[in-house]
Amino acid sequence: MRILVVGMGLIGGSICKSIKAATSHAVYGCDVQQAVLDDAIADGAIDGTGTMTDGTYDMIILCLHQRIAIQMVQEALPKIPAGTILVDTCGLKGRMVRDLTYRCRKADVRYVGTHPMAGREKNGYYASIPNLFQNANLIVTPVDGTDEAALDTVKELADQMGFGKIVTATPMWHDNMIAYTSQLAHVVSSSYVKDFCMDDALSFSGGSFQDMTRVATMDESMWAALFLDNRDNLLYHLDLLIENLTDYRDALKQRDEERLQYLIAEGRQIQEENVRKRQEQNELQKGETA
Amino acid sequence: MRILVVGMGLIGGSICKSIKAATSHAVYGCDVQQAVLDDAIADGAIDGTGTMTDGTYDMIILCLHQRIAIQMVQEALPKIPAGTILVDTCGLKGRMVRDLTYRCRKADVRYVGTHPMAGREKNGYYASIPNLFQNANLIVTPVDGTDEAALDTVKELADQMGFGKIVTATPMWHDNMIAYTSQLAHVVSSSYVKDFCMDDALSFSGGSFQDMTRVATMDESMWAALFLDNRDNLLYHLDLLIENLTDYRDALKQRDEERLQYLIAEGRQIQEENVRKRQEQNELQKGETA
Repeated sequence: MRILVVGMGLIGGSICKSIKAATSHAVYGCDVQQAVLDDAIADGAIDGTGTMTDGTYDMIILCLHQRIAIQMVQEALPKIPAGTILVDTCGLKGRMVRDLTYRCRKADVRYVGTHPMAGREKNGYYASIPNLFQNANLIVTPVDGTDEAALDTVKELADQMGFGKIVTATPMWHDNMIAYTSQLAHVVSSSYVKDFCMDDALSFSGGSFQDMTRVATMDESMWAALFLDNRDNLLYHLDLLIENLTDYRDALKQRDEERLQYLIAEGRQIQEENVRKRQEQNELQKGETA
Repeated sequence: MRILVVGMGLIGGSICKSIKAATSHAVYGCDVQQAVLDDAIADGAIDGTGTMTDGTYDMIILCLHQRIAIQMVQEALPKIPAGTILVDTCGLKGRMVRDLTYRCRKADVRYVGTHPMAGREKNGYYASIPNLFQNANLIVTPVDGTDEAALDTVKELADQMGFGKIVTATPMWHDNMIAYTSQLAHVVSSSYVKDFCMDDALSFSGGSFQDMTRVATMDESMWAALFLDNRDNLLYHLDLLIENLTDYRDALKQRDEERLQYLIAEGRQIQEENVRKRQEQNELQKGETA
């Protein structure tokens, strides 16, 4: 295949590098920064450069923020040949999949929504690595009208790139889960560091404190937009967390040791089950690799 | 020195192993489980067994839960020779240090309160390792009347055992910091897992979710007691966290993007400063080791 990757940041750059490392597909890059494209060619991450409207690709992979991605597709669609597979990698799927499924179907472009569950604490092309997706989950969000053959092509490529598990979800369920597993974690981390003891914490901290605070270094313009784009889901899980924390507070206030033990045991049992399932999944993946 | 370690769990066992590995001191073990003592002798972790009342040690190190430790010292004190150094390693210091300083002074026993900031997700002697304290912080909590020479002996031993930094704190400040850096993290983790999405989270989770949920597997009888023993401090920080989370909830409810950006930026700046300080400290430690 001839593959165009649009947006050569951490995800886009890593996609190029992992496709080049694992397949014989030709990979082309598109980015607003010419220096990044030059370096990507020098790195062997891409075979050349291109644009969405030069009309010569089997697959176009969008690695852009949601708001920019929708606008760019809207402008480029009239010039994208019928049959082209268009993939997006945005972290929210509800609005994206609704918009692009509708628009692409009218243009006979075969759209597939995905979300690669991988990242690093650094961003941008210069943080990209070929093994970023090794054993990571890839969420795919097909809906009524998604082209089955296009979906299979995407899954096969993901498999070659080293993804661990390919998970199918509806766009709405995906966004709900991301509100819980990622966005809420970022809100907690950002809230956790706002304590007058933070200045002195370094001397008293072990692993659990590092865990709580690690992702507090969010970029405010990107994350505020992401939170608002997924507002209802995030609000739901945030309310629930505040309720659960308030249960602890009330039991402590009332010096209710029995209730505290109950609350701790409840969490322990849920997490033990989670750890057990994760181990099972890891063993399954090991078995498949062996 | 002849050193007796009382309570051969994860901490006690690791203390024995690290002293034996790094010094020529004679180490004796005391535990209710004979099998653990037999295995510790076979492992070379201890040179023999002993009790607090056989009266032949330069230093006794208590590695027991607070409630048991205070009671055992109370019973043993009349038989501990004057001048013996008595060290405890409990995770809360306020009540412990107040009680033991007073009691030990009357018996001419030289008490030093400490808290080694190290742990593993497993517990018990069979999880103990000689390098558990490598580069970990040791908190020492001297008060008026703490014997300076005994404190120096403890610090020197800690240095030989591989501790990174020895931090001096008042018992009250220590307990306040532990409420924030450790206990609150455990309450958050336990609260975080109580969400109906937990069952499905495995497929949608990256590093930030693993971080949030890791320490939710607490033992309920131990942790409920720890929380109540430090109730006022923990309540303070828990209230503050709920307030900070509520700020996020309100901004989301009101769709206030500017306010969200402000809240995120505030957390980012605090955490950037924290990361910067941690890097400085790590470089300092590397420099000292080199």
